[in-house]
Amino acid sequence: MATQKIETNPAFVLRAIKDCAIEERPVPKLRDAWDVRIHIGQTGICGSDVHYWQRGRIGDFILKSPIILGHESAGTVVEVGSAVKNLKIGDRVAIEPGVPCRHCNYCRSGSYNLCPDTVFAATPPHDGTLSKYYIVAADYCVPLPDHMDLEQGAMVEPVAVAVQITKVGKVRANQTIVVFGCGPIGVLCQAVSKSYSAKKVIGVDISKSRLEFAKTFGADGVFLPPAKPADVSADDWSVKLAQMIKDEFNLGEGPDVVIEATGAESCIQTGINLAKKGGMYVQAGMGKENVTIPITTACIRDLTIRGSIRYTTGCYPTAVDLVASGKIDVKRLITNRFKFEEAEQAFELVRQGKESVIKVIIEGVQN
Amino acid sequence: MATQKIETNPAFVLRAIKDCAIEERPVPKLRDAWDVRIHIGQTGICGSDVHYWQRGRIGDFILKSPIILGHESAGTVVEVGSAVKNLKIGDRVAIEPGVPCRHCNYCRSGSYNLCPDTVFAATPPHDGTLSKYYIVAADYCVPLPDHMDLEQGAMVEPVAVAVQITKVGKVRANQTIVVFGCGPIGVLCQAVSKSYSAKKVIGVDISKSRLEFAKTFGADGVFLPPAKPADVSADDWSVKLAQMIKDEFNLGEGPDVVIEATGAESCIQTGINLAKKGGMYVQAGMGKENVTIPITTACIRDLTIRGSIRYTTGCYPTAVDLVASGKIDVKRLITNRFKFEEAEQAFELVRQGKESVIKVIIEGVQN
Amino acid sequence: MATQKIETNPAFVLRAIKDCAIEERPVPKLRDAWDVRIHIGQTGICGSDVHYWQRGRIGDFILKSPIILGHESAGTVVEVGSAVKNLKIGDRVAIEPGVPCRHCNYCRSGSYNLCPDTVFAATPPHDGTLSKYYIVAADYCVPLPDHMDLEQGAMVEPVAVAVQITKVGKVRANQTIVVFGCGPIGVLCQAVSKSYSAKKVIGVDISKSRLEFAKTFGADGVFLPPAKPADVSADDWSVKLAQMIKDEFNLGEGPDVVIEATGAESCIQTGINLAKKGGMYVQAGMGKENVTIPITTACIRDLTIRGSIRYTTGCYPTAVDLVASGKIDVKRLITNRFKFEEAEQAFELVRQGKESVIKVIIEGVQN
Amino acid sequence: MATQKIETNPAFVLRAIKDCAIEERPVPKLRDAWDVRIHIGQTGICGSDVHYWQRGRIGDFILKSPIILGHESAGTVVEVGSAVKNLKIGDRVAIEPGVPCRHCNYCRSGSYNLCPDTVFAATPPHDGTLSKYYIVAADYCVPLPDHMDLEQGAMVEPVAVAVQITKVGKVRANQTIVVFGCGPIGVLCQAVSKSYSAKKVIGVDISKSRLEFAKTFGADGVFLPPAKPADVSADDWSVKLAQMIKDEFNLGEGPDVVIEATGAESCIQTGINLAKKGGMYVQAGMGKENVTIPITTACIRDLTIRGSIRYTTGCYPTAVDLVASGKIDVKRLITNRFKFEEAEQAFELVRQGKESVIKVIIEGVQN
Repeated sequence: MATQKIETNPAFVLRAIKDCAIEERPVPKLRDAWDVRIHIGQTGICGSDVHYWQRGRIGDFILKSPIILGHESAGTVVEVGSAVKNLKIGDRVAIEPGVPCRHCNYCRSGSYNLCPDTVFAATPPHDGTLSKYYIVAADYCVPLPDHMDLEQGAMVEPVAVAVQITKVGKVRANQTIVVFGCGPIGVLCQAVSKSYSAKKVIGVDISKSRLEFAKTFGADGVFLPPAKPADVSADDWSVKLAQMIKDEFNLGEGPDVVIEATGAESCIQTGINLAKKGGMYVQAGMGKENVTIPITTACIRDLTIRGSIRYTTGCYPTAVDLVASGKIDVKRLITNRFKFEEAEQAFELVRQGKESVIKVIIEGVQN
Repeated sequence: MATQKIETNPAFVLRAIKDCAIEERPVPKLRDAWDVRIHIGQTGICGSDVHYWQRGRIGDFILKSPIILGHESAGTVVEVGSAVKNLKIGDRVAIEPGVPCRHCNYCRSGSYNLCPDTVFAATPPHDGTLSKYYIVAADYCVPLPDHMDLEQGAMVEPVAVAVQITKVGKVRANQTIVVFGCGPIGVLCQAVSKSYSAKKVIGVDISKSRLEFAKTFGADGVFLPPAKPADVSADDWSVKLAQMIKDEFNLGEGPDVVIEATGAESCIQTGINLAKKGGMYVQAGMGKENVTIPITTACIRDLTIRGSIRYTTGCYPTAVDLVASGKIDVKRLITNRFKFEEAEQAFELVRQGKESVIKVIIEGVQN
Repeated sequence: MATQKIETNPAFVLRAIKDCAIEERPVPKLRDAWDVRIHIGQTGICGSDVHYWQRGRIGDFILKSPIILGHESAGTVVEVGSAVKNLKIGDRVAIEPGVPCRHCNYCRSGSYNLCPDTVFAATPPHDGTLSKYYIVAADYCVPLPDHMDLEQGAMVEPVAVAVQITKVGKVRANQTIVVFGCGPIGVLCQAVSKSYSAKKVIGVDISKSRLEFAKTFGADGVFLPPAKPADVSADDWSVKLAQMIKDEFNLGEGPDVVIEATGAESCIQTGINLAKKGGMYVQAGMGKENVTIPITTACIRDLTIRGSIRYTTGCYPTAVDLVASGKIDVKRLITNRFKFEEAEQAFELVRQGKESVIKVIIEGVQN
Repeated sequence: MATQKIETNPAFVLRAIKDCAIEERPVPKLRDAWDVRIHIGQTGICGSDVHYWQRGRIGDFILKSPIILGHESAGTVVEVGSAVKNLKIGDRVAIEPGVPCRHCNYCRSGSYNLCPDTVFAATPPHDGTLSKYYIVAADYCVPLPDHMDLEQGAMVEPVAVAVQITKVGKVRANQTIVVFGCGPIGVLCQAVSKSYSAKKVIGVDISKSRLEFAKTFGADGVFLPPAKPADVSADDWSVKLAQMIKDEFNLGEGPDVVIEATGAESCIQTGINLAKKGGMYVQAGMGKENVTIPITTACIRDLTIRGSIRYTTGCYPTAVDLVASGKIDVKRLITNRFKFEEAEQAFELVRQGKESVIKVIIEGVQN
């Protein structure tokens, strides 16, 4: 007890652009009776973490004062508020990193992913999870079964992103799906689609090694787009690429669902030209703010173009079950592991963007 | 009876680009037991009719041999196939102008508007309705109540287009709706939305007289966009226009539904920037094949972008009821009336695109 | 200020079964920063209020200690918590009477009407609104436009019930609807359906005067079921009644939607036999716990049978707009008005269940 | 050629109640250009076939003149109409046994399973598939991949029934499902649910051997209901059984989806009491025409009660893919095989209803 009073909360803090350091922070307190305190066990690094580190902003979210980084975490419950019913001390949980206001119309109607007042880990000005302890609302923690470890628990976050994308895309049995991008989110979208009994899932990427990995993970087939000939316009080339993909994989009029997880303009154009009439196109990746799209094709073909952002109710529990049941082997995505003290090296590795690096995980502060 | 044997079928034929004439065609025969023969009473002219007349093609539909023009028609049943149950001789009907194949997956799943083998009136190579008689499947005719005349019956077609657009947009009570474009389709989308108890419907157009009309027809408010200052980029301007519209009409985060019925790139951009988070954007108008859109905004805001094309089951009956019940006064849209012999003059008037001309109607061949 | 300290909160308290009295309670305090205090202006009486008064329980909700009655109220904001953004002192509001926990899966997914921990006014052990002041979460108050008075505001509650029922029933344009029951909820379901452009709405009741009223309020037609002949079984009679209704109102295979707002077994049976294939049946009224239904018919006809309970996001704002826009004239439902001091007389009048009494309203405590 | 002229079409004909015989019928001809002729390879026997044999009617379908029996068949295309695009001679196909009218509103809106004019195999007065040749519309045939044999093709029918039931029930990943009945349809519903990544699937039956089989096929757990004590009412017992099932399988408030595939009143009651609030109950089995259900519970819990009948677009292709991909091993359901000449013995075996008999298959007439 006496020692607990002087316990601190080591945290990996982004102090300014390109300026990170481990700081000793005070142990955080529950904000209300619905909160729990988590001892963070494992944390994955996401591109957005690196983006804040390198550039200090994403869209309207701008780093104005130091924040703790990290938002893909799992850990162990060490303190429980008085109103909490679903958790007890010692429970091991995956942490959904955004807790909404619960009072706006988005929250009240089940679209809490759109709540403007969400406290989202490591999105300025809110602290993230890369510290010894993290405070979060109990209903945004999902217990892990005994046979899942905390590394798998940390990997629940990208799986939940893929679960939301496939939910938005209404992916279901017997469909054909083309996913642009074979990074972590892309291959997880492919694997989630297969776990829902999609008939044929195709991965597209410009990296051969990523395509090789995708083929062993969730894709039934993969496509490496040839380079655009200089004398062909981008518009025409996207139409041609779409036809090549349809032809190579016997997709007839096109896939039922296109998931675009790169944000690249050429992929967006090809994807819209690719989807079958009445089909679904989900924009999951972000790149340029404005892109040119074949709008007349989208209109005549009666496409549904959807964005996907964060997660909604059920995504985290579904993601936990997909991992727990063995349907998605997230361990295979983890290519590099670091101690908490090596957090900056971990970030640097992600920043380099090597093809061989899929997912980097940072271990939490030990007791 | 004897005279009927030598009866002909006067038809307004597009023989080649910019070359129309009234020809005497043979009276058409029922193709199968499900068909009926209609004596055409009134026909509205649509922009697409004029487009084929002036340019000979729309997208992949190319005029290669003469076709009869016209597809917005109502008339009287004069012959009934042996399998027909829903119609009898003398019934007055609105004609849904596209009869699908009934065998493809689109047809079987209720999306017959996407059937690639649809026989659509006045879409090459299929003949249209501007003739004395027209053959159509009985289930693509909707009987008119006694108090509706055939002019109103012809106007069912654009109302049905608006019904489909609002169906795609899931327009419902208490929503706020912004419609870009105050031509016939635009003002009908506004009126249909109001008839579904939308809370606030705003019309946008660059024509003052169209806005004035819209205000008296279905819009609660109208907006005339100011000219873009030379030193503002198109992207920025669309963001500013969106904000102006939100401010002027107290739309808060934006309307629930945006219906874009112009096809103009600036309207498309403004519309996507305008829709609220989680909102719906329907592309109903067609213009340039490729346009630049704010895709990151669409993605982060979790918008649903939909195309709308033709009609689906229920649109025609709903449109008839909206007119029959007095909820939509289509007579007010009819600004000009012509005899069958004056068909070319009617087309010429539509071609000129005067602001004062809303809808032009051609009377059928009299007995 | 000095006087405010000794201000009390007169309240109409149900102390035990059939034992009501006005008590002086302390002025209630905001529970948290999201709360507001409302000076209650008008309150309608609902059958459930009378049920608790007479029997002390509804289902699992049992009166064990005194509660204040009343849950259909509108009033004026007199105190605002620090986190409240949508209201200010002086705003006149309709009060949604159930505030859910915001943390369970029902709340998080938009189905807060199913939250087991909802604090619902006048449902034991929670106090109701029949007092001078009532504390409620700000997001469960909907501001009234200037031209709506507080009587209309109190009537928003039953309108919101009807909005939820028609939402569950997916009522939309051009549908045919049969509503069993022409009490307040029944006629409001009829009027809401018409405001959504339903084609034909039929009201069924055993009271001629209620049918007469329904006809002037929202119904296109009404049906008074004849008495069951002694030699016909209940099952057969429900089939026959269903056929009579179809025949009398030209409903073909049956209405698109049946709303059952009586809870009577014979109506439930007739309603299920009445709905068209693929149609919707909504159970809105409650009576016997177990009833016999034609399950094979329901199964073969691919019916959807739904319950409806309370309200979900959007019901209250929609109800306010339907009243504010003049689409539903709730004043016509109010047949009797009482002062706060006469509350028990008001309850007694409702208890008697006279046909001429539709809705009874109690004025709030004056300043 | 010469021999073909005198070829006959041996058929297993139900001439009257309990009176079957193999007759030599003429080889049937294509009815229109969209038809194909199939050489039937394998046919499963369904309870409804036996029902017509023993009783001559199901509901309104009454045997008035002889019909050929059988409707669960696969075979080889031997003749193709001129309008057919999706099939060629030699293709091996599963046959969807009901071809709808394609002209009614049900057909036009994608609910062709409700078409009143469907020509359904072996439903009076239409002939079934237990003959050498069968004529069917080409779009109601689904090609089988090379590695699927015709026995598996015949088994596509019950899989498609299960696909429709789970579609109606909106079964999806991470849900908990309880299926009443572990006959062929019940265990297939269980297996289909698992293939969609349902979290936990529980089978209920009164036969231990069926439960044993279910456990090895698709169920995560099984439940054998104890006998009702004499002093407990049926209503109370259904509530208690529901609680037992929730407790035994940690289902919390109840499963997300209940599929009732027995038609037994006690199962229906238990199932409705079992489903969680906001949950789904699908009535898939048929028994008594009228049953008593806990309607107040269904209403307060906001359940959706749905019927399921036949199949809709996509069910057959999905079923083929679930078998082809190895997700559902239908061979394990086939317990008995007969030659065409032994058809009556096969029917007799099904009629006996032994627990050890799951699915009986009859081989087609050899060339």
